[in-house]
Amino acid sequence: MSVAQQTVKKFLNDPEDIVTESLAGLGAAHPDLVRIDFENQLVLRKDAPVQGKVALVSGGGSGHEPLHGGFVGLGMLDAAAPGAVFTSPVPDQMLAATKAVDGGAGVIHIVKNYTGDVMNFKLAAEEAADEGIEVESVLTNDDVAVEDSLYTAGRRGTGATVLLEKIAGAKAEAGGSLAEVAAVARKVNDQARSFGVALTSCATPAAGTPTFDLGPDEMEFGVGIHGEPGRRREKVRSAAEIVAEMSEVILGDLNPAGGSNVLAFVNGLGGTPLIELYLIYNELTKHLEDRGLTATRSLVGDYITSLEMAGVSITILVLDDELTELWDAPVHTPALRWKA
Amino acid sequence: MSVAQQTVKKFLNDPEDIVTESLAGLGAAHPDLVRIDFENQLVLRKDAPVQGKVALVSGGGSGHEPLHGGFVGLGMLDAAAPGAVFTSPVPDQMLAATKAVDGGAGVIHIVKNYTGDVMNFKLAAEEAADEGIEVESVLTNDDVAVEDSLYTAGRRGTGATVLLEKIAGAKAEAGGSLAEVAAVARKVNDQARSFGVALTSCATPAAGTPTFDLGPDEMEFGVGIHGEPGRRREKVRSAAEIVAEMSEVILGDLNPAGGSNVLAFVNGLGGTPLIELYLIYNELTKHLEDRGLTATRSLVGDYITSLEMAGVSITILVLDDELTELWDAPVHTPALRWKA
Repeated sequence: MSVAQQTVKKFLNDPEDIVTESLAGLGAAHPDLVRIDFENQLVLRKDAPVQGKVALVSGGGSGHEPLHGGFVGLGMLDAAAPGAVFTSPVPDQMLAATKAVDGGAGVIHIVKNYTGDVMNFKLAAEEAADEGIEVESVLTNDDVAVEDSLYTAGRRGTGATVLLEKIAGAKAEAGGSLAEVAAVARKVNDQARSFGVALTSCATPAAGTPTFDLGPDEMEFGVGIHGEPGRRREKVRSAAEIVAEMSEVILGDLNPAGGSNVLAFVNGLGGTPLIELYLIYNELTKHLEDRGLTATRSLVGDYITSLEMAGVSITILVLDDELTELWDAPVHTPALRWKA
Repeated sequence: MSVAQQTVKKFLNDPEDIVTESLAGLGAAHPDLVRIDFENQLVLRKDAPVQGKVALVSGGGSGHEPLHGGFVGLGMLDAAAPGAVFTSPVPDQMLAATKAVDGGAGVIHIVKNYTGDVMNFKLAAEEAADEGIEVESVLTNDDVAVEDSLYTAGRRGTGATVLLEKIAGAKAEAGGSLAEVAAVARKVNDQARSFGVALTSCATPAAGTPTFDLGPDEMEFGVGIHGEPGRRREKVRSAAEIVAEMSEVILGDLNPAGGSNVLAFVNGLGGTPLIELYLIYNELTKHLEDRGLTATRSLVGDYITSLEMAGVSITILVLDDELTELWDAPVHTPALRWKA
């Protein structure tokens, strides 16, 4: 029996209900932070709409938790619109989210660069405009692994999305205008680059079997967050070798000035133990030092995942005073919380 | 090829170095919170010893991250002594930790009930006493799955350990005496029960292959955090059925008074996606409601893990005003952080 044919076991009832049931759990666990709109399948900030504040809406296929629903709350998102697993939400969902959180100061759509997300958010933004809500769309396309992937024209949006939602959320919380929040969000995307590696595939609940077939000694170098192909498939190497090449690709493309401060984000894709993520962080610091960079901020853990995929992505964001201050600002969401 | 013979892929250099390299990463990512004592293999609170404060020390085998090193910092542990993966630290490590953090008000040893941990912490406590440091040991044995398991006489210590470290840490931070901190810690253990289920095994880095063999449609019901056998091996059931039985066992043993407030803790064992953990939380709330219990606090995520094991444990802690207040108190550690 090939690995790809073997069923991946999950804690599941009817696979069709996984998103609804999981949202119900999110709402039940964090009633002080979020409320669930089951009709439109949305996670809404408990106190939305916040009058006079620019509102932030994101969304995309489920299966990347805590992204995006786990980032709804003070100092981050006002709403998340989750689709079915690895499936874009529909424009009606995004429109409903936009209307639910608009506090009169306009709404930011944070869109990861996947064809379905881009198209559906565009339709929702147009409809919102027709209803008199000003919308600015911000695209993330930070993944330097490949151009024009399975679901994407251009580069894919991955880890930078998490950092952008935090930083733009802080800017909105601080009273930034729609243009100011959009500008700082775009700055985060411009100053960040990511790269991912998978040791195993993942399985959608509906399929039950691995999305792609990876040999018992192979890894996918440059994988996307839905298991899209990367640069090449190859034998697993040492963590030191893997991180060296990931760093080289990221820093080669980002080309930060020597002496820069950066936020170093080591993200687990779902099935990789934290002991390994910190080992990877340790390898990463060596390459940052070699380039004269200082990681003045860090984030290590599972924040943008691919179900149970064993794998890791690294995101490097070049910081300045503004971004650092916004990163440090209070945040209180199910998955990211400090000073609140 | 049987599943058990297949190598589990990991981000790794020399397997012997995984703990040291991971600790180096933890220290590099959180220099504001912790420092690493590489000679004694310890994670120390950055500002330890805190004069006049009761100090909290825990430890045990590695492979359960973020437990314990991720819980070192303000309002939680003063030191963690990690052994090799799934191997107890040695008494000298625990003694060195105890001496490093003693601020003159005594030291609490938080010990999960595994034979090696119990024996080695006992020796360390005796040596510390000989050197004039007052030590109180607190044992966790909250796992109701089995009595007398592979590495344990009596019940195993699992999820309650996380809650105990947070709550006792807050009591120490608030100026509690050694006896007071020990008392509240014991209360947490007394008022908490846990139960775990595994869908897959895990593999230690040294072995590289799964610790135990679990068929492609099987689960281990009542698993321990090292893959120790539970109550039985059986076919995977629906999440609703699994959680119903887990809840029944936990609540049957804990027997909380109707109307009680509880902290409901759904813990991923390392390889289970967050979307499934929240689905489980949703199932759990139904059983709490049936018993007239209210989950006024929650914790959902990977906090005490078994490397990459796909599985979940549930811990229920009966709250009172004191425990609730201590749970809410500021905490600032790599893995748990709020209001600080």
